[in-house]
Amino acid sequence: MTKIVECIPNFSEGRRKEVIEKIAEEIKKVPKVRLLDYSADQSHNRSVFTFMGEPEAVMEAAFLSAKKAVELIDMTKHKGEHPRMGAVDVIPFVPVKNMTMEECVALSKELGRRIAEELSVPVFLYEASATRPERKNLAEIRKGEFEGMPQKLKDPAWMPDFGKPEIHPTAGVVAVGARMPLIAYNVNLNTSDINIAKNIAKVIRESSGGLKNVKAIGVMLEERQIAQVSMNLTNYEQTAIYRVFELIKMEAKRYGVEIVGSEIVGITPMKALIETAKYYLRLENFNDEKQVLENYLIGE
Amino acid sequence: MTKIVECIPNFSEGRRKEVIEKIAEEIKKVPKVRLLDYSADQSHNRSVFTFMGEPEAVMEAAFLSAKKAVELIDMTKHKGEHPRMGAVDVIPFVPVKNMTMEECVALSKELGRRIAEELSVPVFLYEASATRPERKNLAEIRKGEFEGMPQKLKDPAWMPDFGKPEIHPTAGVVAVGARMPLIAYNVNLNTSDINIAKNIAKVIRESSGGLKNVKAIGVMLEERQIAQVSMNLTNYEQTAIYRVFELIKMEAKRYGVEIVGSEIVGITPMKALIETAKYYLRLENFNDEKQVLENYLIGE
Repeated sequence: MTKIVECIPNFSEGRRKEVIEKIAEEIKKVPKVRLLDYSADQSHNRSVFTFMGEPEAVMEAAFLSAKKAVELIDMTKHKGEHPRMGAVDVIPFVPVKNMTMEECVALSKELGRRIAEELSVPVFLYEASATRPERKNLAEIRKGEFEGMPQKLKDPAWMPDFGKPEIHPTAGVVAVGARMPLIAYNVNLNTSDINIAKNIAKVIRESSGGLKNVKAIGVMLEERQIAQVSMNLTNYEQTAIYRVFELIKMEAKRYGVEIVGSEIVGITPMKALIETAKYYLRLENFNDEKQVLENYLIGE
Repeated sequence: MTKIVECIPNFSEGRRKEVIEKIAEEIKKVPKVRLLDYSADQSHNRSVFTFMGEPEAVMEAAFLSAKKAVELIDMTKHKGEHPRMGAVDVIPFVPVKNMTMEECVALSKELGRRIAEELSVPVFLYEASATRPERKNLAEIRKGEFEGMPQKLKDPAWMPDFGKPEIHPTAGVVAVGARMPLIAYNVNLNTSDINIAKNIAKVIRESSGGLKNVKAIGVMLEERQIAQVSMNLTNYEQTAIYRVFELIKMEAKRYGVEIVGSEIVGITPMKALIETAKYYLRLENFNDEKQVLENYLIGE
């Protein structure tokens, strides 16, 4: 029963290719860690790495990549559109196989302790690893960003979970945690009116009364001149993709607008798509574990 | 790059548990072969085994199970609803991973030769392995069944592909071949009128002008008192499940009837369900290989 965990750290560097490559090398050099993907966004000035493997190896890769980022990224010189608070900004662990959420939480705490002790970067635990309700949401921790952190850490309510209440002078602070797989899902509308996408985003997202586990904004796809509802689905088991799709379709009708397409950005668990097929085909008594061939190809 | 092939032999024994268990033992004793499932049908007096693994091991298991069936099953005493022509009636190989259809055809020919030589059971090659167009369809080969085979084999058009044109006195003949994965798919209607299911089956199946790769009949689910369109989809890549589902829905409307549910019997490749999700979500640019997490868990 090999345990497999996924790690998706975000770094505050999306422009200097040589820095991104050096971070990638740290991950690649850990035996038995599989680097699935890494990509950088220039305007966000941010990069995202996805790798997986057995817990100890993945934690080692996460630590080494964080260490390299602390060494090479100077937050006092960082500018970018995406909110950020550290050189390595956030490190989530996601259970993939034979792994419980509790085990991912334990792993995140082990890494957090090590980052604080060895790299002198204060660590906040977030999502399933959070030690207080107000620290579950990464956006709350990150409020104030790198520039506001020295002040924020003076507040006893924002004492870091590991390390002293002083930011690392160039690397800031980092959030480490465990969470469910997140699906980045966007729905494209046959309108160039971004306000329609914004209105739909507002009614379907959790924060303003919509579906739980849905974060949504309205954006404009300039090249195609169409509006898009851009989302993060933070728990596809509770809040299925098809339900999000159908709810957007229903809300769009109000404006005489239709869905022209949708997209999943990055990697999704098979189960999220199988649930969708089960819904539309009205499948009765389908057992994912036993009836999907690929489940027999995945080792114990 | 480990090659994985699936084998789904059908045996003419669905009642004597001890015989079925002895066949299962032959498969289980081959190292590295994984027996996924086996099930028997009393009224059909027939059992179906599903196992997979590397080609040589799977072929060995197929041969040993055939040998045991020839030893323990006497077709002169066999009665059952399902058409049949041999103790081991049919042995298909299905490519699963890193395996081409041509390699499955080669495997089927190797097994066919061995069965004819070592077990003295004449072998017909069918589906992708067929040596003549009229032998592609298993139903054509099996026509006449066990009882009619001695006569049929006298016709030079039905000279077996391996072995002499004489049936094995108690084990009959066998068809061996390579084919795509087959999906057993049934659609349930909110009517107790079997004729509606029969009419729909007729218009959607390939043989009478419907969708290619679809075999369909109308049956009655007595317990639930509803009619069902019962199908085999012989190429889900060419003829997607959702297309079959939607076409049945459309035809059912003619009778004021709706689909209450559908079912996949046995095992399906993940891709068949992912295609369905892609259709209904109108997914753009989705790359199965790279965007489904489980594909990274399956070894090379």
